[in-house]
Amino acid sequence: MKFLAATIATLALMTPSATQAEGTKMLDDVRMVAPALEKYTQGTLLGDVWKRPGLSTRDRSIVTIAALIARNQTIEMPFYFNLALDSGVKPREISEVITHLAFYSGWANAMSAVAAAKNVFAARDIGSDQLPAASPSLLPIDEAAEAQRATRVEQQFGAVVPSIVQYTTDILFRDLWLRPDLAPRDRSLVTVSALIASGQVAQIPYHLGRAMDNGLTQPQAAEAITHLAFYVGWPNVFSALPVAKEVFEKRPR
Amino acid sequence: MKFLAATIATLALMTPSATQAEGTKMLDDVRMVAPALEKYTQGTLLGDVWKRPGLSTRDRSIVTIAALIARNQTIEMPFYFNLALDSGVKPREISEVITHLAFYSGWANAMSAVAAAKNVFAARDIGSDQLPAASPSLLPIDEAAEAQRATRVEQQFGAVVPSIVQYTTDILFRDLWLRPDLAPRDRSLVTVSALIASGQVAQIPYHLGRAMDNGLTQPQAAEAITHLAFYVGWPNVFSALPVAKEVFEKRPR
Amino acid sequence: MKFLAATIATLALMTPSATQAEGTKMLDDVRMVAPALEKYTQGTLLGDVWKRPGLSTRDRSIVTIAALIARNQTIEMPFYFNLALDSGVKPREISEVITHLAFYSGWANAMSAVAAAKNVFAARDIGSDQLPAASPSLLPIDEAAEAQRATRVEQQFGAVVPSIVQYTTDILFRDLWLRPDLAPRDRSLVTVSALIASGQVAQIPYHLGRAMDNGLTQPQAAEAITHLAFYVGWPNVFSALPVAKEVFEKRPR
Repeated sequence: MKFLAATIATLALMTPSATQAEGTKMLDDVRMVAPALEKYTQGTLLGDVWKRPGLSTRDRSIVTIAALIARNQTIEMPFYFNLALDSGVKPREISEVITHLAFYSGWANAMSAVAAAKNVFAARDIGSDQLPAASPSLLPIDEAAEAQRATRVEQQFGAVVPSIVQYTTDILFRDLWLRPDLAPRDRSLVTVSALIASGQVAQIPYHLGRAMDNGLTQPQAAEAITHLAFYVGWPNVFSALPVAKEVFEKRPR
Repeated sequence: MKFLAATIATLALMTPSATQAEGTKMLDDVRMVAPALEKYTQGTLLGDVWKRPGLSTRDRSIVTIAALIARNQTIEMPFYFNLALDSGVKPREISEVITHLAFYSGWANAMSAVAAAKNVFAARDIGSDQLPAASPSLLPIDEAAEAQRATRVEQQFGAVVPSIVQYTTDILFRDLWLRPDLAPRDRSLVTVSALIASGQVAQIPYHLGRAMDNGLTQPQAAEAITHLAFYVGWPNVFSALPVAKEVFEKRPR
Repeated sequence: MKFLAATIATLALMTPSATQAEGTKMLDDVRMVAPALEKYTQGTLLGDVWKRPGLSTRDRSIVTIAALIARNQTIEMPFYFNLALDSGVKPREISEVITHLAFYSGWANAMSAVAAAKNVFAARDIGSDQLPAASPSLLPIDEAAEAQRATRVEQQFGAVVPSIVQYTTDILFRDLWLRPDLAPRDRSLVTVSALIASGQVAQIPYHLGRAMDNGLTQPQAAEAITHLAFYVGWPNVFSALPVAKEVFEKRPR
């Protein structure tokens, strides 16, 4: 356990007692069933992958909680919500990740995340003053890029299912994406992580491109993909790789 | 909370106290983590989407519980099973939806739904007299259409995995689909919703066509797709849209 | 219930009291919601599918627990972990299945399985002496086949995401796959089952071919696919069938 405590302390640059308690409980269980999995968890995952230089611990936390929410995996949420808070992710950012993924992963995924986050927030006395407003002033929109997106989707599907095209514009791209408490680059990182996590290969090209437009670098994207392999399974990542490769190759340098 | 109560009462055309209690509990939790998500839940989802005219509240309930079962999302089942019963879905229909999805979403998905439905049924004193018989008289079969389907599948996969081809005919199309306590049109709506909910794009063309043969209109199908975006996530719906478009365009008018 | 007891006893060739208790509880719930589903569970699934000659009860247990872990379906794990142990699957094999699927289905899936297996193991007094070592002597590797695999993946993705290519070689194919407490043929059966269970069609060709190289026969593979239809839903199996067909047809005879 000393090793875990040290690892978590290094990751989080502090002594994160709630995180450590959750991690200890998790590894105690693992040891009783799968000693090899304990070894891989402490050695490979927490001891190596999380410490790789290409992506900050904060970004890895965002990628991880996005993957857990997208896959509705509540069992690891207490540990990783705590680790995220220890790593510099703000409560208001976690709140926005959950709200964002209601739309990108489904309403019930967000509701399950709410149930887990509620307990973590309560244990840390995180009150409503640390949460985003329901209706804040929105970020400015890039009208040219949005017009291009809206036109493309309208041409494809406007005659088939007009109502979804309208909601996509009004609620997603002219509202949700402009909420100020999660940076567009982080919002994109959450979206791409959720797409890879749930095998939504067809939607990756647009959102990976948008992520890079929003400031995610190619090395960061590559590192996020490697990180995700452990949380969403190798097959999801290997199905995403050919698409990511094509996006990277097509971008102007 | 008054707004929620009013919304649910309007949706369900009565005072649904169990539904309201579940909804209140759910929104109390959301408010503590994500005030914006509470706003979208009350304003956009329950206050706008559910009230759109293109699809009845009863049909929306069927679509929603099919999506929740297909995605194994037990956290929202108490609320939506109650809302379904308040909206005119019969207990025997919910029972058939669960049985149907054992085959289309997997046995454990049905078992999780059973655990949730059991409590809802017990709280409303719904006994076995309101459930379908295990082996009722079956609906008549369209022998010509079934022969065509069976021949096509036999030619594709009969030599590869003959046993699955046989079970598909015997248990699915000559038994499950003919059970009388869920109308074929509703059974199709459940199937298509489950396919979109779990990203099974390749299976949508046959079942969306069958749904329309069974009486689902194109505007209803389009409205169901929009409704599903909120429950299964935008990416699943945007992956289904090109396929739905092709099905709609190929149908004789 | 007598029928269930008899079925389980036949399946497991003994009197498996924990399994029977779990099964009875499960079916009591089902009867209160969906009598037809009880009938299909006892008659079709446990009474017919599980007794088909093409695949042993032990192999069916491995396929089933792989599918449940891949889909994070904890509700049926107590019953099927018990049934697996009654059917000759060793605790060390279950432990390895869970560790293996941490990589192929995602870390949280393995953690959920740990939580369920822990209770089953404790109730049977299965201690650490029956678990695999964390770092055992590894099986010998087929260097030629591994070099071929590594070169192919390096050429495809080495320039895009080099770190995932490296982990795949070091941790998966030169470590995990060589762990001795689960036979390579069984490890392949677990992998293929998990891929079908989670709709990972693109990854099936390599792993189904590898499974057959590792000793899985085509009739066994076909029977596993039929078995999986009940646990992962018909659509996942029908999406896998065209790919399986192509793999079967391309193999030298």
